[in-house]
Amino acid sequence: MQTWLFESFGNMHPGRRNLTREAGGGRSSGRWRLLIAAMAAVLAVGGCQRQEQPASAPAGPATTRSTPLQSWNDRVSKRAIVDFVERVTREGSADFVPPAERIATFDNDGTLWAEQPIYFQLAFALDRVQALASEHPEWRTRQPFKGVLEGDMKAVAATGERGMVELVAATHLGNTTDEFARAVSAWLASARHPKTNRPYTAMVYKPMLDLLAYLRTNGFKTFIVSGGGVEFMREWSERVYGIPPEQVIGSRAKMKYELRGGVPVLLRLAEVDHVDDKAGKPVGIQQVIGRRPIAAFGNSDGDFEMLEWVTSAPGPRLGVIVHHTDAEREWAYDRGSQIGRLERGLDEAAARRWIVVDMKQDWRVLYPEEAGQ
Amino acid sequence: MQTWLFESFGNMHPGRRNLTREAGGGRSSGRWRLLIAAMAAVLAVGGCQRQEQPASAPAGPATTRSTPLQSWNDRVSKRAIVDFVERVTREGSADFVPPAERIATFDNDGTLWAEQPIYFQLAFALDRVQALASEHPEWRTRQPFKGVLEGDMKAVAATGERGMVELVAATHLGNTTDEFARAVSAWLASARHPKTNRPYTAMVYKPMLDLLAYLRTNGFKTFIVSGGGVEFMREWSERVYGIPPEQVIGSRAKMKYELRGGVPVLLRLAEVDHVDDKAGKPVGIQQVIGRRPIAAFGNSDGDFEMLEWVTSAPGPRLGVIVHHTDAEREWAYDRGSQIGRLERGLDEAAARRWIVVDMKQDWRVLYPEEAGQ
Repeated sequence: MQTWLFESFGNMHPGRRNLTREAGGGRSSGRWRLLIAAMAAVLAVGGCQRQEQPASAPAGPATTRSTPLQSWNDRVSKRAIVDFVERVTREGSADFVPPAERIATFDNDGTLWAEQPIYFQLAFALDRVQALASEHPEWRTRQPFKGVLEGDMKAVAATGERGMVELVAATHLGNTTDEFARAVSAWLASARHPKTNRPYTAMVYKPMLDLLAYLRTNGFKTFIVSGGGVEFMREWSERVYGIPPEQVIGSRAKMKYELRGGVPVLLRLAEVDHVDDKAGKPVGIQQVIGRRPIAAFGNSDGDFEMLEWVTSAPGPRLGVIVHHTDAEREWAYDRGSQIGRLERGLDEAAARRWIVVDMKQDWRVLYPEEAGQ
Repeated sequence: MQTWLFESFGNMHPGRRNLTREAGGGRSSGRWRLLIAAMAAVLAVGGCQRQEQPASAPAGPATTRSTPLQSWNDRVSKRAIVDFVERVTREGSADFVPPAERIATFDNDGTLWAEQPIYFQLAFALDRVQALASEHPEWRTRQPFKGVLEGDMKAVAATGERGMVELVAATHLGNTTDEFARAVSAWLASARHPKTNRPYTAMVYKPMLDLLAYLRTNGFKTFIVSGGGVEFMREWSERVYGIPPEQVIGSRAKMKYELRGGVPVLLRLAEVDHVDDKAGKPVGIQQVIGRRPIAAFGNSDGDFEMLEWVTSAPGPRLGVIVHHTDAEREWAYDRGSQIGRLERGLDEAAARRWIVVDMKQDWRVLYPEEAGQ
């Protein structure tokens, strides 16, 4: 899960000219730390305390073929999810929930796809400065753009909140919805993740894809509820997750309807309309869905209020936290992390009967490619 | 269609203590006109010019049993709608549209249900002042509440915009989403329309119910896009229209997530978040649906931009205006009407190839009860 781009510049990219050319492990280089520290000071967000995970542990027992989630190991997390689904779908059961009320909401960053070393939408923003630079010769001498173009993230950080707002405005706003969708689409087609060299949309979690499909097979309607920009996600959510645009909830800018040469467009204004993070998530859910989901899935404390809202109503409820414990296949982080910080969720999960998925132990495979897809 | 309650007090109820006890023809009593004129002056909306309709005309030929919309007469409007649906659903046709893109949006007031003599949500607001009066003894001496309680709409109007905002805040806001939903539900169960003495939810248009069902049978996803309050509509849209809460878009107040004694609630604040009318309709569509519908249905100039947005994109597009021409079975109004004013839509429909449905001529029946349902 992520705080939206407007709030997330504490996690700025280390400053390579093109993120797709950066190789290696990502989150702990010296330049990274420098930038994060600078941005943290500017934006008054917390420090970057790295949490090491235990070295390794054996994978769980092999999954049995009779169970529905083949990419999950047959451990307590999977059993609890399957048990919930079986209870709410069994007609005549005390926990039966009519299909119309089977709403499940999923955070995106860190829950459905990876979010390290920086939120992928932030990688898009930085790459977009490069892509738009030829149209903006003034950027060569003007911060924060100069810093992004030259890889000088310290200079970027020095521009503070004003610079961050300018960066977002220049890369995300002031265009029409159609123009922005094309920009996202073009970026996704060519950008590669610095560590895996995969397209970003190949870094979705196969166990979560299987879970989405399993829920839909059982009559659930699946929604994304993310701090990320809603228009950024809609461009690929249907193709990648099978989640159509009208089931994507996210942060958004204000929009204005206007005619350009007699042709109507929706202009994306440089003004925040909704930040879909923390207590904004239940609000976003109510704005768009209008009823309380019965299941929610997240990975950070930005998802806390969503899980609280979903699981505090009467009747059968499911709250699930994906815990990033897999430093080998992915990344391991929780407390004190700049991205996807998870503290209160870990502390309160047991009392709230939320399931904490241990990625390393619970997931047989990570990405679709590893599952032969 | 309606401008939202915040903007619609030019159409204030004439001032009976309980709307459910008011009988008779509604929109042209002297007190009515007085109130409307006063409110129009306050809110700087247009005057109330009544448009008389031609006395009568023979109904169209009987529908044939082979056609899908039995409540529609077999005239050009129906044929154009059916032709559109057949073109976009015929695989291999140049106009074929994949099911995921078959989005149809419907205005509510005046399009799916009646809107005279006042928007039904306004009737709810006025009745709710009565319902809440015992908890607010101060209302007996304080305008605009005193005026509502005493049926003195002139005094209500004199309070101007401040009074209108107070009225909306007192009847709609400051409560939780659950509390508001219960209030709407309780009102609907007992309130009766002053002219027909029917429950308001029985004053939905049977031809539009048939159209919704016909579109859904053909793979369309049907949405409401209304100037009315979204939480007001969601309470009954699924039961009455078969449209679930997550497919209802409307005007909304800002909301705040908070804990009350450890229990999370969503509080409805006295601050407008989105006015889903006129140019706000394409914005609401993009916020919630995230792609452009291929068909839109409205009845007033408040729907103009929605129809423009929907029908100005390439590919097969359908724009339909329901024209209230039936003074006998319902009401006849368009130009100069305080409610559901329709001017630009009539002027430009032909050039824009929008279909104008003539209620008197095109609809074989009006309400479900008349169709034996």
